[in-house]
Amino acid sequence: MILTRRSFAGGLLAALATPALAAAEEPCCATGDLGLVVERASGSLVVIDRSARAALGRIEGLGDLSHASLTYSPDERFAYVFGRDGGLTKVDMLTRSIAKRVVQAGNSIGGAISDDGRLIAVSNYEPGGVRVFDAESLEMIADIPAGAKTIGLADVPGRRFIWSLWDTGETWIADFSGEKMVLTKLADVGKNPFDGVLTDDGRTYLVGLFGEKGVTAIDLWEVEPKPVRFLKDYGKTADDLPVYKMPHLQGWAFTDGQFVLPAVGQHELLWVDRATLEPTGRTAMHGQPVFIIAQPASPYVWVNFATPLNDTVQIVDSRTHGVVKTLAPGPAVLHMEFAPRGAEVWISVRDENKVAIYDTRSFAKIGEIAAESPSGIFFTARAHRTGL
Amino acid sequence: MILTRRSFAGGLLAALATPALAAAEEPCCATGDLGLVVERASGSLVVIDRSARAALGRIEGLGDLSHASLTYSPDERFAYVFGRDGGLTKVDMLTRSIAKRVVQAGNSIGGAISDDGRLIAVSNYEPGGVRVFDAESLEMIADIPAGAKTIGLADVPGRRFIWSLWDTGETWIADFSGEKMVLTKLADVGKNPFDGVLTDDGRTYLVGLFGEKGVTAIDLWEVEPKPVRFLKDYGKTADDLPVYKMPHLQGWAFTDGQFVLPAVGQHELLWVDRATLEPTGRTAMHGQPVFIIAQPASPYVWVNFATPLNDTVQIVDSRTHGVVKTLAPGPAVLHMEFAPRGAEVWISVRDENKVAIYDTRSFAKIGEIAAESPSGIFFTARAHRTGL
Repeated sequence: MILTRRSFAGGLLAALATPALAAAEEPCCATGDLGLVVERASGSLVVIDRSARAALGRIEGLGDLSHASLTYSPDERFAYVFGRDGGLTKVDMLTRSIAKRVVQAGNSIGGAISDDGRLIAVSNYEPGGVRVFDAESLEMIADIPAGAKTIGLADVPGRRFIWSLWDTGETWIADFSGEKMVLTKLADVGKNPFDGVLTDDGRTYLVGLFGEKGVTAIDLWEVEPKPVRFLKDYGKTADDLPVYKMPHLQGWAFTDGQFVLPAVGQHELLWVDRATLEPTGRTAMHGQPVFIIAQPASPYVWVNFATPLNDTVQIVDSRTHGVVKTLAPGPAVLHMEFAPRGAEVWISVRDENKVAIYDTRSFAKIGEIAAESPSGIFFTARAHRTGL
Repeated sequence: MILTRRSFAGGLLAALATPALAAAEEPCCATGDLGLVVERASGSLVVIDRSARAALGRIEGLGDLSHASLTYSPDERFAYVFGRDGGLTKVDMLTRSIAKRVVQAGNSIGGAISDDGRLIAVSNYEPGGVRVFDAESLEMIADIPAGAKTIGLADVPGRRFIWSLWDTGETWIADFSGEKMVLTKLADVGKNPFDGVLTDDGRTYLVGLFGEKGVTAIDLWEVEPKPVRFLKDYGKTADDLPVYKMPHLQGWAFTDGQFVLPAVGQHELLWVDRATLEPTGRTAMHGQPVFIIAQPASPYVWVNFATPLNDTVQIVDSRTHGVVKTLAPGPAVLHMEFAPRGAEVWISVRDENKVAIYDTRSFAKIGEIAAESPSGIFFTARAHRTGL
C-alpha cells in the first residue's frame, strides 16, 4: 500500500501538467487504516498506516499540541486537531498537509464533529463557551458564550453537541438539526464539573465533579434528561488530594455491562454496574490509572499509569476483575489505541520516542514506529464512532 | 468529493505515460464514506457515496448475486463479494472495477475476513466445507472439507473463523494465528443448524436450529466454549411451518442488554435478556419480521417484513418494546443500512428500483438513489466491525 501511495504521489502533479487521457488504472490510497500520532513537544503529527505498521510522513506547524485531541471527517480524509493554544487545524490525510488552520480562541480544550460530519464544535477555557465551525471552510457559524469555562464536549446523535460548565454546574445541549439552533440548559448537574464523557452507546453523559464528591449521569434517551448522582464518595474534597490527580473521564471504559474508572489518587480500578449505577468491585493495580481502554470484542481492559509508575501497562479481565497480564513497554506510556477489531494495540512510549505495537492475543511485540515524544494515537476508524 | 474523484481519474493514466514530477497537490478519494448496493437481478453493484447521497458508478459481471453478501478490507479500498454461484470477487472501490475473481465452489453462502485483513473465508453448500483465501491474491491457502454443508460463518478476534455444520450439528473454529491452522470441533450444538451469528461484542455465537426447537449460545470468551440451549420453544418442527419462513440470524439485533429476534412464522418480535438468556417480552408487528437492525447510538430497532407485507418498515423502542413509528418506503423493502453513527438509514426498495434515504430523528425522506432491483446495502464502515 505504501508503494501504491508513493507511485500515486507523482501522478497528480503530472495530471496538472498533462490533460487527462482516460480512466485510471491504479489510483492511490484508501483511508480506512490510516491514523495520526501527536508529537506533543514539536507541534507535529506522524501519519501512520495501520496495515503496513509504518509511518508515512510528518505534518508540522500545528502549534501547541501539549494537550491535543482530534476527530475525523466521515470519509476519513480530514482530521480536525484541537490544540491547547486555541488552534483548530484541518489536516488532509492524503496530501499529508494542513488544509486550513484558524486560531479560534485563547485556550481550547477539546472538540467534536457532528454526526453528519458538517459541524465542528470547540470548547474553550478562554474566553469560555463553545464555538461551532463549518467543517468544510472552518468559518464560524455559531458562537455560544457561557460566561464560564466549558468542559466535556461530545457529539450526540441528531446533529447535537453536549458540554458542561465549570463555573455554573450546568450541562448544555445544542441542537443544530433545525433551521435555528436550539439550546437546552440542565441545571444542578453538580459543583465544578471537571470533565464529561458519553458512553459508547450514546445513551449516558457522565460528569465528573471537582467541587463535591460523586459522579452525575444524564440519560440522553429520556425526553427530558435529568442529572442523577451516583458513586457519592467518588472524587476529591479540598483536603484529601491535589488537583493534578483528577483523572480524565475519557479514560473511563465501558465493558461487559459495566463502567470502569480510576479510584482517584489510589492504585485501584472501580467497577460500576451500568444499569443500576451501583459499585460492583475494585481491582488493585500497579499505579494510579490514567487511561482504562476496552479492547474491542474482548472481555479485557488495558490500563496505563501516572508518573512515576508510567512505564507499565496492565490488562484486566472485566468478568473476574483480575489482572491477567503486566507489560513494560517503556518509560512514559501516555496513550493506547486499538485496531478497531481489537487484533493489536498501539502504545505511545514518550521517553523512548516510539510507538510500540503489541498483538493483543499473544502479547508479543510485533512492531515499532519512531515518533518524537508521542502522546495521543488516533486511527481513522474513530470517524464512525459516536461521542468522541 | 465526486468532482475530486472525477478529476483524479485521468491523472493516474497520465502518470503512467509521464514520469512522476513531484509531490501531489490534490489527490483523490478517501474511502470512509463509500458503500455498495447489490443489484440482485443483474449481478452488478452500485458504488455509493454516503456523504454526497449519490451513486458514483456501477460495477458489472459479478455472476449470481441473488443471495450475495460482502465484506471490506481494513483500508476500506476492497470489497470481497460472496455470490450464490460460488464466485468470490474482489472489487476495487477506487477504480470501481473487478480486481480479481475466482469461482471457488459450486454454491457458496457467505464469507468473512480475518481481523488482520489477510484472510478471506468462504462457506459452501457444494461441495461443503470452508475454503480460505489470501486477501491480496485470492489464492487458496486452506481447504477445510467437512463432508457437510457449512453455515453461519463469521470472523472471531485472533485470526479465527467460526461456522456450523448442517449435517452433523457441530460448530468448528479455525485458528490461523500460529504457523499451522488449529481446528477445534464442538459437538452437540443441535440438530441441523441453519444459521449462526456472532453478537456485536464478539462474545457469543448464536446458532439457529432447524431439526429441533431452541437456539444454541456458545460463549467464545470461555477457555473451553460449550453449547448452551435457550428459548427451547423457538423454531419449527416438521409440521408447523414451511421451510422458507426460517428467519436468518443476521436479522437479529443486539440492543440495550437484549437480543431481539423474529418469532418464527408470526407477526411478532421476541426479546431476550442477554445476560440470562430468558425471554423478556414480545411485540406485535405489521408482518413477519425479516431484518431487525439496531439504529446505532439509540434505543431503536428498525424492522422490515416478509412478502406480501414487505412495503413497510416499523421502528420499535427497545426500552418499552413498543412500536414508535411505521413507514411505507415502497414495494419490496429488502434491506436497511445505517450510517455508522446512526444519523440516517438507507433502505432498498426493490420493486421501485431505488434506495430511499431517511433521517432517523425526523423520519423525513432526505434522498433517493436509482438501483436495479436493489437488495443488500453495505457501507465501508463495516470494515471496522467484528463478526460480519
